[in-house]
Amino acid sequence: MLYIVGLGLGDEKDITIRGLEAVKKCEKVYMEAYTSLLSFGLSGDGLSTLENLYGKRITIADREMVEEKADDILSEARVSDVAFLVVGDPFGATTHSDLVVRANTLRVNVKVVHNASVMNAIGICGLQLYRYGETVSIPFFSDTWRPDSFYEKIRINRELGLHTLCLLDIRVKEPSWESLARGRKKYEPPRYMTINTAIEQLLEVEQRRGESAYDEGTSCVGFARLGSEDQMIVAGTMRELLAVDFGAPLHCLVIVGKTHPLEEEMLDAYKHGRGSLNQKDE
Amino acid sequence: MLYIVGLGLGDEKDITIRGLEAVKKCEKVYMEAYTSLLSFGLSGDGLSTLENLYGKRITIADREMVEEKADDILSEARVSDVAFLVVGDPFGATTHSDLVVRANTLRVNVKVVHNASVMNAIGICGLQLYRYGETVSIPFFSDTWRPDSFYEKIRINRELGLHTLCLLDIRVKEPSWESLARGRKKYEPPRYMTINTAIEQLLEVEQRRGESAYDEGTSCVGFARLGSEDQMIVAGTMRELLAVDFGAPLHCLVIVGKTHPLEEEMLDAYKHGRGSLNQKDE
Repeated sequence: MLYIVGLGLGDEKDITIRGLEAVKKCEKVYMEAYTSLLSFGLSGDGLSTLENLYGKRITIADREMVEEKADDILSEARVSDVAFLVVGDPFGATTHSDLVVRANTLRVNVKVVHNASVMNAIGICGLQLYRYGETVSIPFFSDTWRPDSFYEKIRINRELGLHTLCLLDIRVKEPSWESLARGRKKYEPPRYMTINTAIEQLLEVEQRRGESAYDEGTSCVGFARLGSEDQMIVAGTMRELLAVDFGAPLHCLVIVGKTHPLEEEMLDAYKHGRGSLNQKDE
Repeated sequence: MLYIVGLGLGDEKDITIRGLEAVKKCEKVYMEAYTSLLSFGLSGDGLSTLENLYGKRITIADREMVEEKADDILSEARVSDVAFLVVGDPFGATTHSDLVVRANTLRVNVKVVHNASVMNAIGICGLQLYRYGETVSIPFFSDTWRPDSFYEKIRINRELGLHTLCLLDIRVKEPSWESLARGRKKYEPPRYMTINTAIEQLLEVEQRRGESAYDEGTSCVGFARLGSEDQMIVAGTMRELLAVDFGAPLHCLVIVGKTHPLEEEMLDAYKHGRGSLNQKDE
């Protein structure tokens, strides 16, 4: 059996009892490293924290490894219990459909343990999840590559009065251009887009396209380290959020659509740092 | 401190370690009964299962109680730790913004423990969460009340190529008309809309409106008891799903938009009961 286990958003304590029981009975434990392990403190001692909790060694699996070794992992899962750990939910912002489809083809049983993901945890800002339109991704602009397909989607969402979740670019283990030219893979340091960069890029595109999808005065909510003990959530206009230092990654951004009075009341609580939920335990 | 703790979708094992630790240190534990406690087996011995796990007595709080006694609950939370348990995520399909806004006003600290909700767990069918449009609710039709505001939203989503999550009506603790007329509250037995009823109503509205938002041949995914050990997920056309017996509640329905090849491959696995994820442990 292959258990695909969502770990939630904060740290090792966000696994469910069901998930923990599954991991504990597995012979092999992999952890996906596509996105950010940073939030789990896995750059430092985080990994051993997890290993102690599970009583297991964990093999970190980056995208390359999962693509190259998927069949090996699935062969193990055919004859024993294997866990594949995923930050957030297994089918949240990053999906693991490819692994599941491959498992189906090879007739390996799969069991999914759900958890919170950015896709539902943003509900904490008080904007109703059922009032969101299509989610967009904001990629890092380069000198020569400034794609803006997100613009049209945001414009449509706002015309419909819907909120828009913007997922911000993460560049982990990107081969450097230089190294590709030399035929030897060397990786760029990881980059995580900040809310500030996202808003700068959004405003640049608005200026270029000029279709009034949004402007500096448009109401937004910025989320940093969502679901962690030190999460930061601030509501304000694009202009206001440009001036906020949200600190360490991961960041995401919601562009607000039409609001109901109760949504407004919740947003008020996040304005000008006037309060927040999910404070540290005192 | 008021802890609003998401319990996830399946049963008592879907609470997170963080959530369990919070509940265990609380002096008072409430559990919201707005939606369905059924999935947690709380009609039978489920409640005592939870109470044993937490080592606490649980007070079931229906909507009336939360509205009438919110200030009492919050007064307790001002001087001690109080847990308010919620099936799914605290800000999933049913939100608890009203309680949070009231807590803010009364300057009671609130801490949220996230979990999976229907809003992200539907990702398991393989349709990408970021390709969903606005979520709709399908209410029970009566002889005199057949509202169809969902129709326009589905039509727009489908024109945009987006998937639509349809939340199906739940009627719990509805006062009966008869009892209201007599001035004494008596409640109707709970009603949960099935996928079959939802599709019948959808097709009735399409026939009335005639704007070709969808038809009997439109691809859908039906979910019953999502996140539970005995969940059932079937992909097929509206016509095909009309013939499927999905069993006990809760049900929800996704109307499929434009699909990518990987999404198609995942849906194939759910067609004609050809397989499923999240099987019971053997």
